[in-house]
Amino acid sequence: MSAEQRGNLDAILRQSAFPVDSDVSEQRRQLRELLSGQPLPADVTVTAAELGGVHTAEVTVDGVQPRHVVLYLHGGVYVLGDAFGAADLASQIGRRIGAKVFSVDYRLAPEDPYPAAVDDALAAYEALLHDGIAPSDVVFAGESAGGGLAVATLVNARDRGLPLPAAAYAMSPYADLTLAGASMETKREADPLMSRELLQARVGDYAAGKDAAVGLISPIFADLSGLPPLIIQVGTHEVLLDDAVRLAGVAATADVEVTLDITPGVPHVFQTYHAILDEAAAALDRAGQLLSARLARTQPPGPTARTGIVNDRSST
Amino acid sequence: MSAEQRGNLDAILRQSAFPVDSDVSEQRRQLRELLSGQPLPADVTVTAAELGGVHTAEVTVDGVQPRHVVLYLHGGVYVLGDAFGAADLASQIGRRIGAKVFSVDYRLAPEDPYPAAVDDALAAYEALLHDGIAPSDVVFAGESAGGGLAVATLVNARDRGLPLPAAAYAMSPYADLTLAGASMETKREADPLMSRELLQARVGDYAAGKDAAVGLISPIFADLSGLPPLIIQVGTHEVLLDDAVRLAGVAATADVEVTLDITPGVPHVFQTYHAILDEAAAALDRAGQLLSARLARTQPPGPTARTGIVNDRSST
Repeated sequence: MSAEQRGNLDAILRQSAFPVDSDVSEQRRQLRELLSGQPLPADVTVTAAELGGVHTAEVTVDGVQPRHVVLYLHGGVYVLGDAFGAADLASQIGRRIGAKVFSVDYRLAPEDPYPAAVDDALAAYEALLHDGIAPSDVVFAGESAGGGLAVATLVNARDRGLPLPAAAYAMSPYADLTLAGASMETKREADPLMSRELLQARVGDYAAGKDAAVGLISPIFADLSGLPPLIIQVGTHEVLLDDAVRLAGVAATADVEVTLDITPGVPHVFQTYHAILDEAAAALDRAGQLLSARLARTQPPGPTARTGIVNDRSST
Repeated sequence: MSAEQRGNLDAILRQSAFPVDSDVSEQRRQLRELLSGQPLPADVTVTAAELGGVHTAEVTVDGVQPRHVVLYLHGGVYVLGDAFGAADLASQIGRRIGAKVFSVDYRLAPEDPYPAAVDDALAAYEALLHDGIAPSDVVFAGESAGGGLAVATLVNARDRGLPLPAAAYAMSPYADLTLAGASMETKREADPLMSRELLQARVGDYAAGKDAAVGLISPIFADLSGLPPLIIQVGTHEVLLDDAVRLAGVAATADVEVTLDITPGVPHVFQTYHAILDEAAAALDRAGQLLSARLARTQPPGPTARTGIVNDRSST
């Protein structure tokens, strides 16, 4: 990034970091305020929708004829964020792979602890399948907790015998709620947004008495065999770096196809800053290419029934 | 891979595996015999050359006008293999990025233990720089021990204050001669070629009384800060899987750009089988694209002096 980009990014990061002692309501308020200052691109349309009884935000990009579907899971350590707040980042994936995005408003802790988020994500996916969308036309994507939830949902779907999507794309996945990654310490100084303390304060809200090492809470402890290709991106300036590296290792041990794509010098979910950061747009481009290649690989040879999906041309 | 590809691959792998109790001379004989049955592609030319007093094989592909240089380091646990035997795989990189390849005949153990290989690889790189090749036009590449040696040579070059190449590409790197990777056990049954016992039998030949955890012998123990982008590929059917995963993690901790690209169900240095295995050709294609992107990123804006490098057009 240029010096100007570094300056702009640093200014945003200062606004975005939560005080260590802030509580959930204060963090939710701060996040809403931050997002309210970030208008969506003019060509992005977000409408409320429902999938399997779960609220979602349907995100489309003008001029992009959706041939595929992204099931998107937002971040926020399972207590913050919402489907609409993630619409910009979600739309960046949709525009790159020619997809409509359903960003899932899964229930949040502490009001609704585990397994509410896992249940909602699965219900939304099941509804897509029920609507006639071919699993080979679907990818899961998510950032931070949503990246972990995307992998947990693959595990959950596999265990229930559902057909799996073509791929999953996890940005800075929060995949170990026991916080055992060495980068909790090695990246403590480098990470401008997250810390062990900030994360630790919210683990109990979600786990709610369960062992955080349960596979559907922390997918690095799950059996990942049989999962579709994983595309994992992470920055080196984050305490969650080792969640990404270990998730890649655990998946590979289970014979899963993995691309681990590590960008130096950038913070947690740096793709958020795609409008001002070259590395962010480039990472989204690489993810888009990998996702498109995996979608193409799983396409059946003939025409398939795809309710609601117009199958005519690629997007930019 | 198709069932036919699986059958062909399995037949080759049965020929390629060394008996556990074979000695160095027997393994060298077996490898020579194996390679003698594999003719080079008709469009590949290999000629003996010298770089900094080190024997190399200069590998070119008809119709590919070299705009870049690959410094290639062959595999063979530092006791086997040679520059000419690696020419086919090395040429696959050259043809994908429009490069001339110098495959380095670094000295082998036990006759010439560490640091002979490290010294020879560095001498060859220094000779390229001395010949006026811009470091931004060079990539290192290597397979197995050569992948580890490529990273060790980056560390060595950095420590000596040399300008670094644009990127390095490591296929199934042998990066931990202490053999501490968990995949030594988890992939024991899956790996058709390598085992802890086969590796352990040769570690002493190279380390020759030195601690195998020395950074220039086992780069996962080196400080990797300041290194150029690493592209690391590995299969999931190999005991060296965790060398690749840990190398990626150590590099990321040191703020290095890393792509870790993991292909399921394929063996050690599966790229070797590019002529019969879809996954191999696809992996080489991905590596070529990543290397080309990194070479393009480091190109100076104006024309530069490039002795011996014709700078006119891209290859296929």
